[in-house]
Amino acid sequence: MLKGYTLPRTPRGTSSLAPLPPWHYVGNAIAVEFDAAPTAAAAFLPEGLELHSGRCAAYFVEWQYASDTGEEYLDPIRSQYRETIILLSASFEGAPVAYCPFIWVDQDVSLMRGLVQGWPKQIGSTWITRAYDLPSKAAPVVGPGGRFGATLSAKDRRLLEAQVTLREVTETLPSPGFAKAVNTRYFPELVAGKHDSPAVHELVQLKSRDVRVSPVWKGDAALKIFDHPYLELPDLKPASVLAGYRFSFALTVDDLIPLRDLRADTQAADDRATAVE
Amino acid sequence: MLKGYTLPRTPRGTSSLAPLPPWHYVGNAIAVEFDAAPTAAAAFLPEGLELHSGRCAAYFVEWQYASDTGEEYLDPIRSQYRETIILLSASFEGAPVAYCPFIWVDQDVSLMRGLVQGWPKQIGSTWITRAYDLPSKAAPVVGPGGRFGATLSAKDRRLLEAQVTLREVTETLPSPGFAKAVNTRYFPELVAGKHDSPAVHELVQLKSRDVRVSPVWKGDAALKIFDHPYLELPDLKPASVLAGYRFSFALTVDDLIPLRDLRADTQAADDRATAVE
Amino acid sequence: MLKGYTLPRTPRGTSSLAPLPPWHYVGNAIAVEFDAAPTAAAAFLPEGLELHSGRCAAYFVEWQYASDTGEEYLDPIRSQYRETIILLSASFEGAPVAYCPFIWVDQDVSLMRGLVQGWPKQIGSTWITRAYDLPSKAAPVVGPGGRFGATLSAKDRRLLEAQVTLREVTETLPSPGFAKAVNTRYFPELVAGKHDSPAVHELVQLKSRDVRVSPVWKGDAALKIFDHPYLELPDLKPASVLAGYRFSFALTVDDLIPLRDLRADTQAADDRATAVE
Amino acid sequence: MLKGYTLPRTPRGTSSLAPLPPWHYVGNAIAVEFDAAPTAAAAFLPEGLELHSGRCAAYFVEWQYASDTGEEYLDPIRSQYRETIILLSASFEGAPVAYCPFIWVDQDVSLMRGLVQGWPKQIGSTWITRAYDLPSKAAPVVGPGGRFGATLSAKDRRLLEAQVTLREVTETLPSPGFAKAVNTRYFPELVAGKHDSPAVHELVQLKSRDVRVSPVWKGDAALKIFDHPYLELPDLKPASVLAGYRFSFALTVDDLIPLRDLRADTQAADDRATAVE
Repeated sequence: MLKGYTLPRTPRGTSSLAPLPPWHYVGNAIAVEFDAAPTAAAAFLPEGLELHSGRCAAYFVEWQYASDTGEEYLDPIRSQYRETIILLSASFEGAPVAYCPFIWVDQDVSLMRGLVQGWPKQIGSTWITRAYDLPSKAAPVVGPGGRFGATLSAKDRRLLEAQVTLREVTETLPSPGFAKAVNTRYFPELVAGKHDSPAVHELVQLKSRDVRVSPVWKGDAALKIFDHPYLELPDLKPASVLAGYRFSFALTVDDLIPLRDLRADTQAADDRATAVE
Repeated sequence: MLKGYTLPRTPRGTSSLAPLPPWHYVGNAIAVEFDAAPTAAAAFLPEGLELHSGRCAAYFVEWQYASDTGEEYLDPIRSQYRETIILLSASFEGAPVAYCPFIWVDQDVSLMRGLVQGWPKQIGSTWITRAYDLPSKAAPVVGPGGRFGATLSAKDRRLLEAQVTLREVTETLPSPGFAKAVNTRYFPELVAGKHDSPAVHELVQLKSRDVRVSPVWKGDAALKIFDHPYLELPDLKPASVLAGYRFSFALTVDDLIPLRDLRADTQAADDRATAVE
Repeated sequence: MLKGYTLPRTPRGTSSLAPLPPWHYVGNAIAVEFDAAPTAAAAFLPEGLELHSGRCAAYFVEWQYASDTGEEYLDPIRSQYRETIILLSASFEGAPVAYCPFIWVDQDVSLMRGLVQGWPKQIGSTWITRAYDLPSKAAPVVGPGGRFGATLSAKDRRLLEAQVTLREVTETLPSPGFAKAVNTRYFPELVAGKHDSPAVHELVQLKSRDVRVSPVWKGDAALKIFDHPYLELPDLKPASVLAGYRFSFALTVDDLIPLRDLRADTQAADDRATAVE
Repeated sequence: MLKGYTLPRTPRGTSSLAPLPPWHYVGNAIAVEFDAAPTAAAAFLPEGLELHSGRCAAYFVEWQYASDTGEEYLDPIRSQYRETIILLSASFEGAPVAYCPFIWVDQDVSLMRGLVQGWPKQIGSTWITRAYDLPSKAAPVVGPGGRFGATLSAKDRRLLEAQVTLREVTETLPSPGFAKAVNTRYFPELVAGKHDSPAVHELVQLKSRDVRVSPVWKGDAALKIFDHPYLELPDLKPASVLAGYRFSFALTVDDLIPLRDLRADTQAADDRATAVE
């Protein structure tokens, strides 16, 4: 009897890329709120979601992770990863939610945990300015005037550059936020004739517990989305950049809320598409 | 209507990590046949497969890939990857098949294509000696006495080292081979209470077409599997090493053969496990 | 008595980053000839060299290397590296030579061997289309119509993209070529007040032996140099692109020709600069 | 007139791998004090240094860096790097100093700055547990019982693993320490016949200013040095492990103290060696 929450499933189950939840996370984040063209943002939404506004957020997070029984952070290449997340402002049955069109991480374990949650993860290289507990010309202060940068690249092309200058503490997290993000879990078929009929295609809402947030610093921001030959990220280029943030947060994940099975929708849409061809 | 064979699914579908099949591949391979302890090998087999023998093979392949309409190899970071594959000798309903307990690649696109086929891919770093078309002290000949090395590491630990010394051309590919490999497609649930009830869990057989193989060189080999604190690869340490190979092959993938839905088996086994607790 | 051709020097000398020469190399190269603005190219030349013409070449090479007594290619992470080289057309005392303003490699051993030869090496990520010995949609032919791509990025920014379409075999290697390249060996002082008075600053000419070259394929080419915030590579953007090449070559290095000690020039120039301040 | 503190030297001098000092640094460090066999440690010392004791220290540091005029940390891939340093306890003319036989970093800019200071830098992959400002199962506390891990690998082999459990604040930094480390600057010749007569070979003492140190946490430690086929690091395997530390420090470097030109010693030793052959 093989064991393991994900592939590879093995005799003792210790080789599984992602271990059984719960998964505990703590991270330092830089975030930028910006407005994209609403029609461009709306085009990224799956069946079941409607656009709430053109408001978007880009998050750059330096994470450390541990499973419940393990202490992966003592062998930190198993535990640490950096992530860039784009969130859109959507609504589901009238309630505001976030939706993620793009996300990049730099570790396979994180990629696999993400796919299970419906995050559309790809491998990318994220870099984020760090603060230190000592004054130095080599680091910003976490306080008024502190300047932080963040960049993302994938497949040797730079995709995003952000810069934030802190000004004051705020009570409000950036918006759209992670708390009630909605993703699509998707696992395709490869059998001939079924390439458009996925085995899994469902709208889900993230669920986390034991969430803790540090004081949130807010200030001015700049954000650049670079042109790209095939990734559609530049469709979301900022019309205006609103604010930047720096904060830390911790959370635990071991559950998910199913919202809607989209397989019927896919099939029906395919049939409609076939009918008009 | 979002498009894309895998996540991320986007307005134009050009951002999808893996594009729609067919997927075309060509690679240079080093392979080593070895015998593992049959009970150890048997313990890695999923429901539906039985051990044929303790015979295993390790393949190290330097691949280049293209989709049907694209020319990914002109932006080669999109196309090239290196892979290490372990295959066991199993049988399915009496017919000999190969089964892959472990596989590592170094690109996310390959990881995603693999998951769809049931390959239990993780990210790893594979290095393989190259031959060149010029005589040089810096490269082996593809001929008698030519020596090739290959290594695999993952998460900053070396897992495998192989060495092959070519002796003669053979008519026979290494065994077990890719041709009729059987994998398990597996996509877990995260909803609380369902962590052991995967959304997808099926036994599948690979299918490829337009397969081409170069002349196959065979010779002596050495293979070392290193100890590891949690990966179960060392369970398959060689009792004896039989032969080494070097060859090139090309193939196209756009289909898969479903063999058996293992979800019922999983559920039944879980129920049994619960009953005895 | 410590041993080793470079740091780290150790009791047995086996830890040295670069071993004692000779160094043997074999590589597959894509090259593009192009014309840059002559005044821009001239501005990159060191004391002692004069501009011959605005003709430049970009080389992308997938190398394998071995020392004389070692067989590094059997542990290929020690042996393989990829390199991008820019060459300018200069002259030294009336004789045409090549001069390298920029070069990137992806291994520390290569970086160290390069510094010793005066190559101004930095770490960068080079990708080059590979040819295989089998027909496949995933690889170009080495023949008429075969298309090859190459890219360079450094610090998560793409710097260069090249594409070559082969047309015919030629007798002539691209120009400027490696054969008589002139470099500047440079090792600065850190002692306060001496930051502009390097310990080593000399013009040298490369010397190689046992050079072998494969048939050289030539054809059409495209080359793009991307903008960059601080690297001066874009100063050399192509005014026109002349031709592309693909070939393999092998060589051995264990000598160097000193041309001129530039320390006096540096000091004199510093003095002059001080005088006019 | 080309400009730049190191290669590549260019028209405007902004492409130089390492910029003109001063160089500002801030880092979080894990350190382990241990005893190696004194005869093994002594064998790593250059001419001019004598062994003080078998006491060694391993440092794992997560750095951020900036030049004086630049703000590299806003494009953090230019600024951040991770480093593993081994220090021995030596004496120079009767005064205790540290000496570094091995050091690994993960960025070329750091490697180049290091070579100028005589650090025998190679590229390696260092991972260090991070603390966060929020309680989480995914991170240790900086306080009694907080557990930190660190690992080093190079060329796909793991070389070092350390673990530290904090117990109490101490007034004393680990020993041997950076403060008065002595290095050997070394730049070889490649001209035939001169491979053993370096252009630069001098004993130097590091000098830093504006040093700041955080409170220093001390506790128990474990350290494992793995076997290796050619790196001599395992010669320094711990006979006993004494203590572990965690602290942050900041410093500025723009000077160096020359101690002794070792070129005459090298030449004399070579002559002696030749005489007895």
